[in-house]
Parts: sequence; C-alpha cells; structure tokens
Amino acid sequence: MTAAATARLLDDLATGGSAGSGAGDLVTDPEVLASYQRDQAAPALVPAGMPAAVVRPRTTAQVQHAVRTAAAHNIPVVPRGAGSGLSGGANAIDRCLIVSTELMTDVTEVDGASLLATVQPGLVNAQLREAAEREGLFYAPDPASWEFSTIGGNIATNAGGLCCVKYGVTRDALLGLELVLADGSAVRIGRRARKGVAGYDLTSLICGSEGTLGIVTEATMRLIPPPRSSATLAASFPTLGSAGAAIQKIVRNSTPSVLELMDRTTIQAVEAMAPQELDETVAALLFARSDLGGSAALREVDRMAAWCEEAGATLAITTDEEAEGRMLMAARRLAYPALERQGATLLDDVGVPLGQIPALLDGIETIAQQHGVLIGTFGHAGDGNMHPTIVFDHHDPDAVARANEAFVALVRLALSLGGTVTGEHGVGLLKRDFLAAELGDAHALHHAIKRALDPHGLFNPGKGI
Amino acid sequence: MTAAATARLLDDLATGGSAGSGAGDLVTDPEVLASYQRDQAAPALVPAGMPAAVVRPRTTAQVQHAVRTAAAHNIPVVPRGAGSGLSGGANAIDRCLIVSTELMTDVTEVDGASLLATVQPGLVNAQLREAAEREGLFYAPDPASWEFSTIGGNIATNAGGLCCVKYGVTRDALLGLELVLADGSAVRIGRRARKGVAGYDLTSLICGSEGTLGIVTEATMRLIPPPRSSATLAASFPTLGSAGAAIQKIVRNSTPSVLELMDRTTIQAVEAMAPQELDETVAALLFARSDLGGSAALREVDRMAAWCEEAGATLAITTDEEAEGRMLMAARRLAYPALERQGATLLDDVGVPLGQIPALLDGIETIAQQHGVLIGTFGHAGDGNMHPTIVFDHHDPDAVARANEAFVALVRLALSLGGTVTGEHGVGLLKRDFLAAELGDAHALHHAIKRALDPHGLFNPGKGI
Repeated sequence: MTAAATARLLDDLATGGSAGSGAGDLVTDPEVLASYQRDQAAPALVPAGMPAAVVRPRTTAQVQHAVRTAAAHNIPVVPRGAGSGLSGGANAIDRCLIVSTELMTDVTEVDGASLLATVQPGLVNAQLREAAEREGLFYAPDPASWEFSTIGGNIATNAGGLCCVKYGVTRDALLGLELVLADGSAVRIGRRARKGVAGYDLTSLICGSEGTLGIVTEATMRLIPPPRSSATLAASFPTLGSAGAAIQKIVRNSTPSVLELMDRTTIQAVEAMAPQELDETVAALLFARSDLGGSAALREVDRMAAWCEEAGATLAITTDEEAEGRMLMAARRLAYPALERQGATLLDDVGVPLGQIPALLDGIETIAQQHGVLIGTFGHAGDGNMHPTIVFDHHDPDAVARANEAFVALVRLALSLGGTVTGEHGVGLLKRDFLAAELGDAHALHHAIKRALDPHGLFNPGKGI
Repeated sequence: MTAAATARLLDDLATGGSAGSGAGDLVTDPEVLASYQRDQAAPALVPAGMPAAVVRPRTTAQVQHAVRTAAAHNIPVVPRGAGSGLSGGANAIDRCLIVSTELMTDVTEVDGASLLATVQPGLVNAQLREAAEREGLFYAPDPASWEFSTIGGNIATNAGGLCCVKYGVTRDALLGLELVLADGSAVRIGRRARKGVAGYDLTSLICGSEGTLGIVTEATMRLIPPPRSSATLAASFPTLGSAGAAIQKIVRNSTPSVLELMDRTTIQAVEAMAPQELDETVAALLFARSDLGGSAALREVDRMAAWCEEAGATLAITTDEEAEGRMLMAARRLAYPALERQGATLLDDVGVPLGQIPALLDGIETIAQQHGVLIGTFGHAGDGNMHPTIVFDHHDPDAVARANEAFVALVRLALSLGGTVTGEHGVGLLKRDFLAAELGDAHALHHAIKRALDPHGLFNPGKGI
C-alpha cells in the first residue's frame, strides 16, 4: 500500500460516517500498529501481516463507517476483541483494516426480570459476570480467559470453559445480537424471548463464525439463577484407563458442574512451578464439582468419589468447604501456565465423542513416544474436549520439527476417533489445513453461506472456514 | 398437471436412483393422497393444495432420487414427518411432491458411552426415548406430541416441550445430521463430539428451518443421564398478577424441570371434561417440578411453594410421590383437549421475554374482552412461551371473524412486548404474515441463506421464512 493510499484511507476513516463521527479512534503509530498483529496463537504456527490501520470504534455507526470505508478501499477487515484468541483468528492480514472493539464496553442493559443483559462486544467476560451478579444472577460461560477476553471474542469463537459441561457454551447463552454486514448495514437477529422459532437460527450461525460473516456490535446474553453452593472432588488414578472409566461412569450418571482432567506430565509441571503436594507418580488427576447446594452437592460428589474408587482411584477426596474446594482445583488452574514454564508450547484443542476419551488419552501417549516429545494433557473431560500441550525447546530445530509433527498427529488422532479438530479455540489460521478433512462433503455448504453473507470476502479472509 | 405429466413423474420416481431402488413407496390412490394434504394447523387459517404424488422413501438414496426427480420435473418438494405440526408447515402445495419420512424409522445406533443416538427422521420421539432408556439414558425434548411426532419433524420445527425449561429444545439435543440438498447431494453436518467449533453451526441453521433448506435423512441426538426422582408443586392464584410474581421469583432463583401455567378459562374447560376437583374460581394454576432427586427435589419445590405463598397463592401443594405428582399435573395435560371440546379452537404459540409474562397475561385478557371471544391460556411459563387458545363457534360467521381478529391481536401483543410470533410451533403458513414484523431489517438475510442453499426454491416454497 503506498503512503498516499494509506493517507487517503486514514482520512476516509477519520471523517464522514453517521453524524460525521468517523470510524472511531485511529491507531497510526507503527509500534502500536505492530501490537495488533497477533493474538495469542503460537507465532511459529501461524502467519501475521501488518495492518494498514487499526480503528477503535465506540458505536455501531462507527463500525459501519469502518466497514464501508474498508470496502471502498478494497482492503479486508479483521475484527478483533482482546486479542486473547489461541488460533490466529484475530491475526492481521497485510494491508487490512483491524476493527478493534476494545472501546465498545458498555453494558446497555441488565434486565433482571427477563434474565438477560445486552452489552457491547468489547465488554470483558468478567465484567458481564459482575453486572449479572449485581442483579443476583449469573453469566455462565467461563473460558479460561474470562478475566480478559471479551464477549465479542467469546461469540466469535463460541468459547467454552469449565462450567460449560453443565451450563453450555457461549452459543447457549446468546439470545440475540446486532451485526454489521459486509455492505455496512446493521441488522438485529435473534430475540429477547427465551424460546422462539421465527426464521432461521442466524444467531447460532454467527456464533463461532470467527469474524468471517460480520462484526457483532451488540449482544443480548442469557443470564441464569446463581448456582447454589458447590462441593468438590479430586481423585488420582494409577492409569489413564482407570481415569477414563471413572469419567464414563460420572457423565452417564450425574451432572457435574465441572469435570476436568490433568495427566502426569501436567501434574509434574504444576509441582515444579508451585508445589501442591500432588502425587507425581499417578497417571491422572480428575476434578469434579457439583453445584446442587449444601448436602445435595456433597452427596453428588461423594457418589462420584465412589465411582472413582470402583474404577481404581488410589485416592478420592471430597469437600463442601468452598476454600478447600478452591485449593483442590488450584492445580487444574495452574496447568497451562505450569506447562508454559517448561519450554515453548503448542497448545492443542481437540474434541472427541465421550466414549472415545480413553482412546484419545492412549493415543496422545503413543504420539508423545513416537515423536519423542513431551505432551501434557489437561482439559474438559466431561465434554471430551482436551488440550494436549506439546512442550519443546524452540532453540532446537529438530525439536521444533518433532513438535510440529506431533501437533499434526494429535489433530489426526482426534479426527480418526470421530472427533473435531477444535473443541473451543476455533479454526482461525491454526486449523485451516485440517478443516476439509473434518467437514468433508459439507465444506462447500460452508462456503455457500460465506458467499451469501460476504460475497466479496471482506471479513477476515483466509480464517475460519 | 396433465395426466401424462403425472404419469411421467410417477414413472421417474419409481425407477432409477441409486441401485435402481427409485424413491420409495409411491402413493397414488386419490383418497390417500388427500390424507397428505394437511398437518394439524387450523384449516380455516391455512390453505392446502393437492400433491401430484406422495413418496415414502426408506433410505437416504431414495430421498436423493425423490429430490432429483422433483427438480427435474420442476415441481416443489414438501417434506413431511408425522403431519402433527400446528402451523401448516407440512401442508401440500398444489402439484408438489410430498416426501414423507414415515417409513424411515431405524435407530441406527445408540452409543451409550458417547451419550448419543443416531436415528432416521421418521422415528417417533417416544421410540427414541425408549431406545435411550434401554441404555440407561434419557432423551430430553418432549413436545406435547411426543407419542406420535417424529424426530425429523421435531428438528424441522425445533420443537420444545415441558422439559425444555431445564433441558433445552430440540436444537440443544441435536449434535449432527445428514441432509439431502436441493441438488440431490447428501452431506453430513455437525459432529459426534459434545463440543466443537470447526466451521459454521449449520446444524443449528437447519434445526427449525421447516423443511425449506433440505431434507434431514439421519440425525445424531444427544442423550443425557436419566433425571433423578421428581417432586411436584401445584399452586393456585387469585389473580394473574400474583401468578406472574411467583413465576418471576421461581425463574430467578431455581431451576424447575417443569414450570407450567393454566388460566381460569382452561381450568373450567378441564373441569367440564374430566372433573379434577379444581377450584374454578382461581385465576390461574401453576405447576412446577424439580428433578433433583429425593429430599433435594422436595426441598426445591417446597422453596417454590413458599415463594408462591409470598406472591399471594391461595393454595400450594407439594409432593415427592410420583403418582400424586402425576395427578397434580393431569389437569395441565388435559388443557388443550379440554379447550377443544368447548368449540372450534385457534391455538396460538407466542413467546415473550420472561419479565413480560404478566403483561402478556394481562394483554390476553384485554383482547378476549375487546373481541368478545373466549381465550384459554396455558403454556410454558418458565420459557415465556404461552398457548392462548381462542375458543369459538365455527358455525357463526361473526364469531369466526372475531376469533381471527383476536388471533392477529395476540400475535401483535407478543411483538409489542419484545416477543416472538412463534415460540415452538413454527411459522409454517400460519405466521408468515407476521414474520416481516418480527425479523425487521434481518429478513433479507434469511432470504439470502435460503437462496444460497436452495437457489431454485425447490423445498417447501412459501413456508417458514
């Protein structure tokens, strides 16, 4: 892009639009521009270009002006929330316009009587949770990034989290939204009613579409009654197989509000970082919670503990003390930071049908051995969504090559088990090469949808589908 | 259609296709053809044409051949399940080909370990429930028609039911499906894993699309652990306002597995049909269940009973005896049959945000008075989805006119409260005229999706969107 062309672009972004308010704050400082090049996906695995400009709108009208201006200048638009994504979905494309929603942080309404909140997309997940709590209500989706990721980003990736085994993913909490389309128009889809079947479910279509169909400028999210008090279980297993058997028994017979697994490699990493007196010789730790309240919650985790013991657990501890429960769960929260301290990491995000969890865990061990890499596995056992994380020395070209090969092998393993290449992080740039294998004959249908909504490929080209 | 053209159509349907198996059983008897003209929507409100032919395939390949043959003959395709729909979605179009899935009743698999079942679309909901129960699992969506409606029909309308206040609608149970497209190809969308974000959520797009985008030939449904034992509450209220206040308190503070309302007109109709010793002077009855099991369930409904009394309930009975609970709920199950015995009925299906339930109930009373009609209201209070049912004398032209006017007024009332024209029955033919008002600027987006998937308008033209 020539300097003159960039100047014209910036000029057009700054002026015009509804009420002459332009497209919002413009970022032009090269160093600041560069800070918008990437999300949190491993740089070694995904490319990133240099944006022509970054704009930070505050209103829907400013987003519309940004989209119209980019279209007029024939440059792609990359929507961006907090940049905390893990698949490169928000990475810049050379000469693109990045539309960052970071200043769109209004809570438009919290309607306690209707159990819903309407917010701008840049609002951080944690802030929506706080707004809901002030009304005595609860916003359920809790991706690990909940303290810094935005609702818009959560919608773009259909983010999951620990609670979603019981309360569903972001899609299940999304009632309706406002969307700026490729022609710059803004439309409202979905509804405020809890149930409704008028028209196609475009809300679910947009959720998880990774910024490829439009820019969400407002979202109405479903709130739920606050969960009752929780009880917690932690159990250790001598083999992955016995942990898998316990998971199977739990998901078939109860409704945990959390059901998480961590393998030996991850346990050892956590102990190395912040000793929790975990037994580093066990094959896996399983964490479960029940939020049925009081004695019912404790009874529920006690039942789970009995199933764990039947399956061969060497130890199963339960508590209905919240502080003790938090301590038991602390190791799980440290899993990824602890693995990151061991070297460079490739964090994967595969999902399998629940019955294939034992085969997935077995397969991961085999891949670690075959490729001579360290893989720490943790994740959402109750959803079959695991995060095998390859730890390697990025100074060693051979180790890098083996890590990359293992990464591919993990994704193929999930597919071979009837699973998915991405359970909750999104395709972004990271999983593009595997998408055709997963979508099969339906791939063309996804492209037909893309063409119908974005015929000129304005939004986030080359990402997602 | 000339006799010769019909003969050519029938001939082409009977022959060819994969392995020469044609498109399945052909219906040609004029009387039997006529029995495929309508679903259960009120004939006075929706037209129905005469099909050129009805075909009853048994396999995906036969459905593909039916679709290709209809396209070649340039006649529309109307997919049909049990014909138990309530909005005319399955009504015949003149000279159409009806593709009835009634013979596609296979349970392809029940994978207990993965908590899923794959079935053909003609399987009746009750049969899926039985197949799940044999694996110790539960299929949650329970439309009132569950004993005769099909899974394909449930998917086409995204059917709800009593349980969906806790367990979600059909979409929430739908993991993946096989779909025959307008070009006759068959594609698989969705997945077997519980969670996944690869590609757009086409599964949710198809769910509720009322046969306008393709024909579902196989569906993979999510199963859940069996609910634990239930406790039941029935409470009577002197005013609709006090019932509304109790609903509000319950949905903000607990998770009923059923939360249903029935107004005085409906109570009186039930007493006239099958005396339950209900107090016919109360304004409303509220029914709630908790399936937390044992004493936890009873405590939960006891809490709800206390909230009902705080809100002004004249009586609140709870029980954890299943037989007694069924007796308490019996009146609710009789609501619609009882109203039907009072005269001709127009059954509506509107939804509002939870906070607008009192305003909806008030508004229904006002409409009944203004239009001089009897309206019995019952429905899913916990979802804001109500079925105000206009009872009238269809021999009296003036009464018919007033009933029709009241029907329109009910739909407009729901829209004015930020609600939806259809909570769970679908748009079909019945609600087409109101769709533009609900979808607003997004209407064009729905049509863009339709064009992308069905460019020649082969599937169910004039229905749904």
